[in-house]
Amino acid sequence: MFSQHVVVDNTELLIRKANGTKMRPIWQDKDSEIVKVIDQRLLPHKLIISDLRSVDDVINAIKHMVVRGAPLIGVTGAYGVYLAVINFDGKTGFDDFLINECNRLKSTRPTAVNLSWGVDRVKDKLLKMTNQSARIDIARNEAAKIADEEVENCKKIGENGLRLIDEIWMKKKGKTVNILTHCNAGWLACVEYGTATAPIYAAYENDIDIHVWVDETRPLNQGARLTAWELNNHGIKHTVITDNAGGHLMQHGMVDMVIVGTDRTTYTGDVANKIGTYLKALAARDNNIPFYVALPSSTFDWKLKDGINEISIEERDPDEVRYVQGLELGSIKSVLLPPASSPAANFAFDVTPARLVTGFITERGVCRATKQDIKRMFPRNVDELTSSSRRTDLSQA
Amino acid sequence: MFSQHVVVDNTELLIRKANGTKMRPIWQDKDSEIVKVIDQRLLPHKLIISDLRSVDDVINAIKHMVVRGAPLIGVTGAYGVYLAVINFDGKTGFDDFLINECNRLKSTRPTAVNLSWGVDRVKDKLLKMTNQSARIDIARNEAAKIADEEVENCKKIGENGLRLIDEIWMKKKGKTVNILTHCNAGWLACVEYGTATAPIYAAYENDIDIHVWVDETRPLNQGARLTAWELNNHGIKHTVITDNAGGHLMQHGMVDMVIVGTDRTTYTGDVANKIGTYLKALAARDNNIPFYVALPSSTFDWKLKDGINEISIEERDPDEVRYVQGLELGSIKSVLLPPASSPAANFAFDVTPARLVTGFITERGVCRATKQDIKRMFPRNVDELTSSSRRTDLSQA
Repeated sequence: MFSQHVVVDNTELLIRKANGTKMRPIWQDKDSEIVKVIDQRLLPHKLIISDLRSVDDVINAIKHMVVRGAPLIGVTGAYGVYLAVINFDGKTGFDDFLINECNRLKSTRPTAVNLSWGVDRVKDKLLKMTNQSARIDIARNEAAKIADEEVENCKKIGENGLRLIDEIWMKKKGKTVNILTHCNAGWLACVEYGTATAPIYAAYENDIDIHVWVDETRPLNQGARLTAWELNNHGIKHTVITDNAGGHLMQHGMVDMVIVGTDRTTYTGDVANKIGTYLKALAARDNNIPFYVALPSSTFDWKLKDGINEISIEERDPDEVRYVQGLELGSIKSVLLPPASSPAANFAFDVTPARLVTGFITERGVCRATKQDIKRMFPRNVDELTSSSRRTDLSQA
Repeated sequence: MFSQHVVVDNTELLIRKANGTKMRPIWQDKDSEIVKVIDQRLLPHKLIISDLRSVDDVINAIKHMVVRGAPLIGVTGAYGVYLAVINFDGKTGFDDFLINECNRLKSTRPTAVNLSWGVDRVKDKLLKMTNQSARIDIARNEAAKIADEEVENCKKIGENGLRLIDEIWMKKKGKTVNILTHCNAGWLACVEYGTATAPIYAAYENDIDIHVWVDETRPLNQGARLTAWELNNHGIKHTVITDNAGGHLMQHGMVDMVIVGTDRTTYTGDVANKIGTYLKALAARDNNIPFYVALPSSTFDWKLKDGINEISIEERDPDEVRYVQGLELGSIKSVLLPPASSPAANFAFDVTPARLVTGFITERGVCRATKQDIKRMFPRNVDELTSSSRRTDLSQA
């Protein structure tokens, strides 16, 4: 599909860590126009860097989850616009070309709102520009700026979430703080720090004794594969559990707090996130455990009011459920679970209603999951609210 | 471990179906003293029959989940007592020998109460008997009787549960009834019919249009492997889903009813069942969907009052979480999911509090999950209640 470079034994990652430079899941090659990404399908067993050279490369990378995670999809979409501009051949009008390429990028995956947001932000800077070389500069700079802003946002999410963990740490008088997370909302999903993991990394840096319960997150096991890999590399105590286990842990006092990310959050506080998040929110509520959602403002959808009825949930290939991929004798293999003729369904996200969310951890601070509190924290955006509650079929967007 | 016979292409199963004889997961060989079981670890990809010739064979089969499911473990334990008697060498006193062998059998797995119940029922018939040949006859007959009684119980559970499905079918005016189940509480777990599946099979026989959502049931995937295999062989419409998906389906009106089995149920109505059951019960309650537990009376624990605090939950090998087994190129392989150095935890069951259970489907009828209703349905047993609420460490039992 695109050229790939194996990074043996995580060496590059370790070198970058040693140099004090944080590895990112996406960056522009310093010597070429190529956009580089970590192929997240093969972690934790192989660290492979792939080259993106065209809009089609970006579409494939997003569709097949070479890159995934709401903020990272936004950044990748932004770089996709840059690659569109690079590949503009002048045979048609630029604006029409650009709008068409952007629509192709935005239709790749339906649920994460960051994709449209990132693509449109670069596109809006380019429309009506006539100088190709200036277009390229603007597109590259804007994509890089979005990436850097998401890093800055995640850093602030970490600082804001740290206070919540610190409060629990004080209450527990220094006993280990146990945090449960679902899927991967780490730096792999968000350029640096992560959203849900940012407060965890901040707590670790501040010498708070933390331990993370990592939901494996079927079907694609982003928890077991990616979050465990991140925490393991960082030296943070963690334990991988099945998605079934969280309720039991909560019933027995083994979870102090849940933090998850989100792919699209309504201005009323409903949270679309990886399938199974809703079940953990229910268990947290049933056991009086705080359930927080960490997100940058780019993940709010200022047009949607009713998450359950208005957010279309992506259905992916049932074979992602039927087959499980992992390492066997040094090779990555996929094994079939059910009878070959049994059908499967693969809903990728679910919606946790605002009433189950204790609060949002954003770059601006922590707020409750209500329209009023969200509006207070992001006043400019909520002024743009449309009062319509039409059904937005995002899979068609 | 024990000798195994491959049944290629499910041929024996199909022959037995064609002859109108139902295959069972356990039976005594008609020409020898050997107890035969289906090795449930390798389904659905290989149907293999194993021979059990000794108490150690039975212990291994239960511990390594060659056989599993509460009623089947009870029956296997009963046959274990028969094999103990067969292997009695007369060098020690019989009663001491028997009690010791029964304790070894009962300590194999802690959560399913049927194991102790089945073992003790045969043991109690044998104590103080002096004629070895009579002991063998009694043990064999009692084990067979327990198996047949469980079949009869499951059949009645099917009839009693059928009425509930039929009510929904009437209300939906003939539209497909969607039932969600977790784990495998089918004939593989229960000799014939199953507990949770008995009403499903009965509905199918009665031409009700049903469709079953099959939770894959990590870590050992008894849903994807065993329930899907049963339903597939029977021709019942079903779809395999991840354990994460049920909440989303319920939010969107795609589930009419949940039916699960149980491994131990207190006389107050708390239900220990496969890990993750509690999460589905929470989602069912949140969406006003009836949540039923199907069980024979052998699964009630008449001594326990508080399921969450009194039922010790088995912790199994973390590698059952870290590795997933399935079919690759015709061979059964295990693939590693998380980083090799990431630890995992493997809690096998959780407890669903009675308040979340709509009702019990038993061989005597359907009742609410309250002490009062359970007592009305099983008056003899509840009279034997101990009022003690001591913590019973079943893993030491």
